[in-house]
Amino acid sequence: MGKRVLIVNGPNLNLLGLRENSIYGNMTLDKLNDIICEKAGQLNLSVEFYQSNYEGGIIDKIHGAKGTADIIIINPGAYTHYSYAIRDAIKAVEIPAIEIHISNIHCREEFRKTSVIAPVCMGQISGLGTKGYLVALYAAAQMISGGNKNEL
Amino acid sequence: MGKRVLIVNGPNLNLLGLRENSIYGNMTLDKLNDIICEKAGQLNLSVEFYQSNYEGGIIDKIHGAKGTADIIIINPGAYTHYSYAIRDAIKAVEIPAIEIHISNIHCREEFRKTSVIAPVCMGQISGLGTKGYLVALYAAAQMISGGNKNEL
Amino acid sequence: MGKRVLIVNGPNLNLLGLRENSIYGNMTLDKLNDIICEKAGQLNLSVEFYQSNYEGGIIDKIHGAKGTADIIIINPGAYTHYSYAIRDAIKAVEIPAIEIHISNIHCREEFRKTSVIAPVCMGQISGLGTKGYLVALYAAAQMISGGNKNEL
Amino acid sequence: MGKRVLIVNGPNLNLLGLRENSIYGNMTLDKLNDIICEKAGQLNLSVEFYQSNYEGGIIDKIHGAKGTADIIIINPGAYTHYSYAIRDAIKAVEIPAIEIHISNIHCREEFRKTSVIAPVCMGQISGLGTKGYLVALYAAAQMISGGNKNEL
Amino acid sequence: MGKRVLIVNGPNLNLLGLRENSIYGNMTLDKLNDIICEKAGQLNLSVEFYQSNYEGGIIDKIHGAKGTADIIIINPGAYTHYSYAIRDAIKAVEIPAIEIHISNIHCREEFRKTSVIAPVCMGQISGLGTKGYLVALYAAAQMISGGNKNEL
Amino acid sequence: MGKRVLIVNGPNLNLLGLRENSIYGNMTLDKLNDIICEKAGQLNLSVEFYQSNYEGGIIDKIHGAKGTADIIIINPGAYTHYSYAIRDAIKAVEIPAIEIHISNIHCREEFRKTSVIAPVCMGQISGLGTKGYLVALYAAAQMISGGNKNEL
Amino acid sequence: MGKRVLIVNGPNLNLLGLRENSIYGNMTLDKLNDIICEKAGQLNLSVEFYQSNYEGGIIDKIHGAKGTADIIIINPGAYTHYSYAIRDAIKAVEIPAIEIHISNIHCREEFRKTSVIAPVCMGQISGLGTKGYLVALYAAAQMISGGNKNEL
Amino acid sequence: MGKRVLIVNGPNLNLLGLRENSIYGNMTLDKLNDIICEKAGQLNLSVEFYQSNYEGGIIDKIHGAKGTADIIIINPGAYTHYSYAIRDAIKAVEIPAIEIHISNIHCREEFRKTSVIAPVCMGQISGLGTKGYLVALYAAAQMISGGNKNEL
Amino acid sequence: MGKRVLIVNGPNLNLLGLRENSIYGNMTLDKLNDIICEKAGQLNLSVEFYQSNYEGGIIDKIHGAKGTADIIIINPGAYTHYSYAIRDAIKAVEIPAIEIHISNIHCREEFRKTSVIAPVCMGQISGLGTKGYLVALYAAAQMISGGNKNEL
Amino acid sequence: MGKRVLIVNGPNLNLLGLRENSIYGNMTLDKLNDIICEKAGQLNLSVEFYQSNYEGGIIDKIHGAKGTADIIIINPGAYTHYSYAIRDAIKAVEIPAIEIHISNIHCREEFRKTSVIAPVCMGQISGLGTKGYLVALYAAAQMISGGNKNEL
Amino acid sequence: MGKRVLIVNGPNLNLLGLRENSIYGNMTLDKLNDIICEKAGQLNLSVEFYQSNYEGGIIDKIHGAKGTADIIIINPGAYTHYSYAIRDAIKAVEIPAIEIHISNIHCREEFRKTSVIAPVCMGQISGLGTKGYLVALYAAAQMISGGNKNEL
Amino acid sequence: MGKRVLIVNGPNLNLLGLRENSIYGNMTLDKLNDIICEKAGQLNLSVEFYQSNYEGGIIDKIHGAKGTADIIIINPGAYTHYSYAIRDAIKAVEIPAIEIHISNIHCREEFRKTSVIAPVCMGQISGLGTKGYLVALYAAAQMISGGNKNEL
Repeated sequence: MGKRVLIVNGPNLNLLGLRENSIYGNMTLDKLNDIICEKAGQLNLSVEFYQSNYEGGIIDKIHGAKGTADIIIINPGAYTHYSYAIRDAIKAVEIPAIEIHISNIHCREEFRKTSVIAPVCMGQISGLGTKGYLVALYAAAQMISGGNKNEL
Repeated sequence: MGKRVLIVNGPNLNLLGLRENSIYGNMTLDKLNDIICEKAGQLNLSVEFYQSNYEGGIIDKIHGAKGTADIIIINPGAYTHYSYAIRDAIKAVEIPAIEIHISNIHCREEFRKTSVIAPVCMGQISGLGTKGYLVALYAAAQMISGGNKNEL
Repeated sequence: MGKRVLIVNGPNLNLLGLRENSIYGNMTLDKLNDIICEKAGQLNLSVEFYQSNYEGGIIDKIHGAKGTADIIIINPGAYTHYSYAIRDAIKAVEIPAIEIHISNIHCREEFRKTSVIAPVCMGQISGLGTKGYLVALYAAAQMISGGNKNEL
Repeated sequence: MGKRVLIVNGPNLNLLGLRENSIYGNMTLDKLNDIICEKAGQLNLSVEFYQSNYEGGIIDKIHGAKGTADIIIINPGAYTHYSYAIRDAIKAVEIPAIEIHISNIHCREEFRKTSVIAPVCMGQISGLGTKGYLVALYAAAQMISGGNKNEL
Repeated sequence: MGKRVLIVNGPNLNLLGLRENSIYGNMTLDKLNDIICEKAGQLNLSVEFYQSNYEGGIIDKIHGAKGTADIIIINPGAYTHYSYAIRDAIKAVEIPAIEIHISNIHCREEFRKTSVIAPVCMGQISGLGTKGYLVALYAAAQMISGGNKNEL
Repeated sequence: MGKRVLIVNGPNLNLLGLRENSIYGNMTLDKLNDIICEKAGQLNLSVEFYQSNYEGGIIDKIHGAKGTADIIIINPGAYTHYSYAIRDAIKAVEIPAIEIHISNIHCREEFRKTSVIAPVCMGQISGLGTKGYLVALYAAAQMISGGNKNEL
Repeated sequence: MGKRVLIVNGPNLNLLGLRENSIYGNMTLDKLNDIICEKAGQLNLSVEFYQSNYEGGIIDKIHGAKGTADIIIINPGAYTHYSYAIRDAIKAVEIPAIEIHISNIHCREEFRKTSVIAPVCMGQISGLGTKGYLVALYAAAQMISGGNKNEL
Repeated sequence: MGKRVLIVNGPNLNLLGLRENSIYGNMTLDKLNDIICEKAGQLNLSVEFYQSNYEGGIIDKIHGAKGTADIIIINPGAYTHYSYAIRDAIKAVEIPAIEIHISNIHCREEFRKTSVIAPVCMGQISGLGTKGYLVALYAAAQMISGGNKNEL
Repeated sequence: MGKRVLIVNGPNLNLLGLRENSIYGNMTLDKLNDIICEKAGQLNLSVEFYQSNYEGGIIDKIHGAKGTADIIIINPGAYTHYSYAIRDAIKAVEIPAIEIHISNIHCREEFRKTSVIAPVCMGQISGLGTKGYLVALYAAAQMISGGNKNEL
Repeated sequence: MGKRVLIVNGPNLNLLGLRENSIYGNMTLDKLNDIICEKAGQLNLSVEFYQSNYEGGIIDKIHGAKGTADIIIINPGAYTHYSYAIRDAIKAVEIPAIEIHISNIHCREEFRKTSVIAPVCMGQISGLGTKGYLVALYAAAQMISGGNKNEL
Repeated sequence: MGKRVLIVNGPNLNLLGLRENSIYGNMTLDKLNDIICEKAGQLNLSVEFYQSNYEGGIIDKIHGAKGTADIIIINPGAYTHYSYAIRDAIKAVEIPAIEIHISNIHCREEFRKTSVIAPVCMGQISGLGTKGYLVALYAAAQMISGGNKNEL
Repeated sequence: MGKRVLIVNGPNLNLLGLRENSIYGNMTLDKLNDIICEKAGQLNLSVEFYQSNYEGGIIDKIHGAKGTADIIIINPGAYTHYSYAIRDAIKAVEIPAIEIHISNIHCREEFRKTSVIAPVCMGQISGLGTKGYLVALYAAAQMISGGNKNEL
């Protein structure tokens, strides 16, 4: 059986495709998840999706990943900038995590340039739009396929 | 026919796998390119590889990509930190570009923490080792498959 | 039919009138809402009330306002000072919002002087006590009566 | 009937004994609660346990303690450092609260040295390990046994 | 036979219950000690009390604790803020010590926020009034009952 | 019967008249006390004298003044500059106190310019030499004659 | 025969008229050069054109100008901001040089405000668009017509 | 009869040889005093030893030395860093004093680098271990053998 | 066979002897190389010369030295001050390198005082004019003759 | 045979007793040396004297001490404040050294408070006048008698 | 007859090979001079060696070199950092001088990073160990073989 | 018989007239001394000349002036800027001294602006060239003619 990926989306990401369409297109989170799901099948990965606007919900889910997920892909949304609680959760479960941001956080407001989550993640993917999720999925497949990150 | 990806590696990356093996493993750039190539086939992409230690060479290549490449993946090596000329080239050709770094540039010497290239790229992938190139390739495939980066 | 106003109260505001009576009087949130309701009728507005101590709950409600409310009046309580997630929610739904504080936040502890919510709201009303809610309601009526806010 | 104590544990404390065993031992929160419970019986106290990773959940619980708890023992976890909302909740319900930290927060990362909760608590117990909970329980028993905190 | 606890009170604590009654109640140090004594019996601890307004007296007592006490509970009073000599004494005798303050030292004059004693103590209990002594006694019982501070 | 004044002299003041005669003359503390005593009779005051080099001794004496003295005149000597313990003692007994210094402490070494005692005293008399004690006595007589200090 | 002018264009200027048309119009470098050529004839000047994206290529060309050009007009592109090597080349050949920038470099990104080339040039012309080249040509004619630059 | 030396040891020095043996050896203060005593006999000096953890005790002893000691050797321990009262005492009695420190105070915690005692002593001996006391005794013998400190 | 030395000259050094003759004389790089060559023969060294105005050319050459040169002598010209790419190249090939400057870089413009190359070189020779090359050659002979740098 | 002590006096110390008699008495260096010599005999030490106003002379003498002296007593005079060369000499010969100053260097001009020699000495004796030499001699005897500095 | 080289070694360099062997090897200054001498013969140079720990001696020797030496090689040892007198001497005699340091002075204590001698020397050779002297000799041979330093 | 003047010249002044003639002319020290000598006769002064490059030599000479000179004229050369030892020597002998500099030390390198000698001299004459020596001689004659320096 394939490896298991948990994809966590933080606050406001449920509005994807429903707001600011000129910037984000009209891809909703559900549609996105369907596409990710299909792609996951091709990569022999099983995926579980979780979105919450609740900091606590995200922490619960990360805790639950212990034993049920091999890697976490997380877009912490605005929690990126202040949630030491999510940071502690990722560190506690000791599951490798990839941080993802849809937009390039270096081209936005000053407060978005600091990530309190980054120090406990393996790597970062940013600026690739919603497609970045497929990229992160692919990266997750690579990361957990065995060997260290420099062995292909 | 598939989309065309130009993969540009900057100074000293031709030495990949030939130096500092304890850190980078013994994967050479040629072997890496072979693996990328094979992967590209699966993704129905054609890839062109370019490595140069010349700032001017890299600029010429980026210019030449106009009309011959649909996306650029670039690891600017040490030029990351001072080549405003490469930055201008990427901005001028208006081909989407993905910046990639093998290591996490935030965990090294102070001068490596600034990227003058980042503001003109679509996104950044860092800290995923040489596997990061496959991830970037995959990202490229996603980016150029049609629609904008939020359309899957 | 009249315009619809969503009135959101953040953490601890459910305790209104039940605590610190010497400062806030013994007006409870329920009583306040009744009065607001009556006033709304006079202004030909319909109102919906929502109170939650959950950052995530408030975000969910704001999202739900898309299509069901013409304007939002929000007292974010202590979230005012650090919830970039609520800020993003208000910005995302593109419904005009008025930030309200019962006390003058500039006359209290240092940390209460910063509002991360303010930049995405249309305006702020503070220091007018619970009567400020009626003022906000009146302001809302003015704002959504048609024309831009400089047209009378 | 005995006095009622509400013991609130914040984010990630549900993982107690399940992570970083070399530091925290293998005492889980459940086992710890059982021991606390037994101890409470001896102290003629009834205890209610609440653990949540939700900031809002913690606030609701604190509100609900009005009339159902005589004292609160709270380990706010990472919320210690930014949750002004929990601070307001404790202040609002006017139930005496004791802040507890398992480790000495002055010997860790810089951001852990500031407690925004402390100014609204009656006192603080820190650095006594999980045994600190029994100490806090005992402290609670003392605090609510009648008279003010200086009457024995 | 039970473990031995030395309880040291610094300058002005002999006035307990005799001054500022509205704040501290009318519990005198003698009465407090009687209560502590009784409680100690229940905890199978023997206690020795020492109060002095003399810095030197306190140091002498701490020295004498070597071999006659298993743990020290100390409220250094105003010496908390400048007595490097008491600090040296605690460090020298290598007996575990718990620092106790009746009031919350973080809610008073600026100079009371610095403790030169803290770095040589195991933990700190503050703000629990005179009852805090019983709590400290109980904490002492826990600390010296065997095992490390996370084993119950 | 007259009001009672406690005159406390701190460290090294027992040496008055026995050292640095060129500056202080050859008035000893005993002779000074005799003169003060005589003056006190004229003012219908009874006086008690206390001198100690012990911080703890001074604190003890101040404590003992509760009920036996109506006002304290204190020259804390070098303790002026660091004894928060004496400060706490004066504050605790709630007896009005007048701080006295023979020399002008503002015209001496830098460290003598700070008095940690001053904030808990009613007033300060400095730089008037040993005659300053008579002045302080007179001031004490005024202060305790009834009415508040602004009523003549 | 007329004086000889070497016109050097640095990195990315080969893309003139092919990019960012809304800003730069659709004048290509070739067309521009034709116009310059014609103007040169009227001024009785011969012109040679050189464009390269290579720092080294530009240095080589400047070296080659020794004996074949009377004056250099150079737009160093992004090299303006860090190429001390081009600076040294201009200084070495001792041919008078005029620095030209199409846009006003003081109205753009911060990094564009510093020119390391300027100190070795005779003068600078910036912000006059592509017409600036004609101005520079005219300036060159003036400069090399004989006499020093302050003699008309 | 020989001259008289008063040797004053401040706080915690009574623990010499009983703590931190790996640093200070196992020479106790009593044994050290015996050796000093014997040495004193050879130097035709009578010695009196005084150790106190009391600041006041040390001041009293220094006062008492007037007429009973010809020189003082003092290791003020931690009082070195804040006892302006001991400083005043030494200055007042006008008996020559030698400050001694076992270790080099410039190689320890920051707060140990300042001596408020030094300016009133004749000289300082530091870094010579417990042997430094014999050196100080010898120095004392030299100092008081007649004439000023430059007459041998 | 003799050891092999690679002599790399950076930008503008091809102009040696052709510019600023009053300072540098009329020794051209070719003549200099001839002389170096002859000297190398006497030292039983084979030499290879490389000059380029191209940063990339220099990097390529340094890479090529792996296996074909035992030591590198490099005058990076103006690249000394900003080429992190050349620095990385020298570090990567792990061939000992000697940095040489014709002039004394401490007596020129401020920007010439910083060398980003120095930290990866064995030593530095400066201010000896073109003769410095012969000196560097001789130094190279010494350095690679066997033994460490202090064994003759 | 006894241990050998080298006593080095720096610049101007040859004037001892011949200048500023009111401060230094009329003990000349010769007389002082005679007295030291006699004392040395009693201590079973042989002494060698060296005075020089020459920095170089002092360095030479320190070098010569290798094998001919077991300990060095040095008063570097004004060289104390700038002679890194004497510092290097003491460090190089690896003979224990005691730094001595006749006056208390902390009660003089600002520049005298810094000793560049101190970091390479075992200890320091200051402020004891010319008698300090006898003290230093005695200290030397103690230091080299065997055992470490805490063993008597 | 050959040219004459004066080799000046400053303070403590006479100890070369006799101290800190693990760093400097066991090459003494005499052996080093023999090797230099032999090498000088091959270079048709006569050499004179001078080592002094005296600043004045070094100055005298430099003066004496006028007319007896064609070049000076100087390792000023610790005088490098403060001897403006040696600096003036070198400048005055107008004999070309080469400064040499065995170690890289930029990798040691802060005070060793400043050379007050450098601005009056022709050049500097550093970091090449004792072999650096042979390199300096060779450099000297080159410098004085005729012509200026750029003529070979 | 006339008063006696000692004229001391420090390092490098023996080279007067032999170096930098364009600045200093070709007046040698010997010639200068002859002229001074003649002038001294007219002023009824006897003069003694001393020049040394040794700091120690200068100190020795100053010492020797005690009893053989009535005033000292000293040009300390570069020692002006760091020789606290010469400063101490001048102070010790208590002979009035006049500091002289040929050039204006305030118009040269930064380091020449500080004189550590000045504070112990009666006055300073600088910037008057070699003629300044005659001025100094005249000044000396005035100074020692009797009366204090403000009496004419």
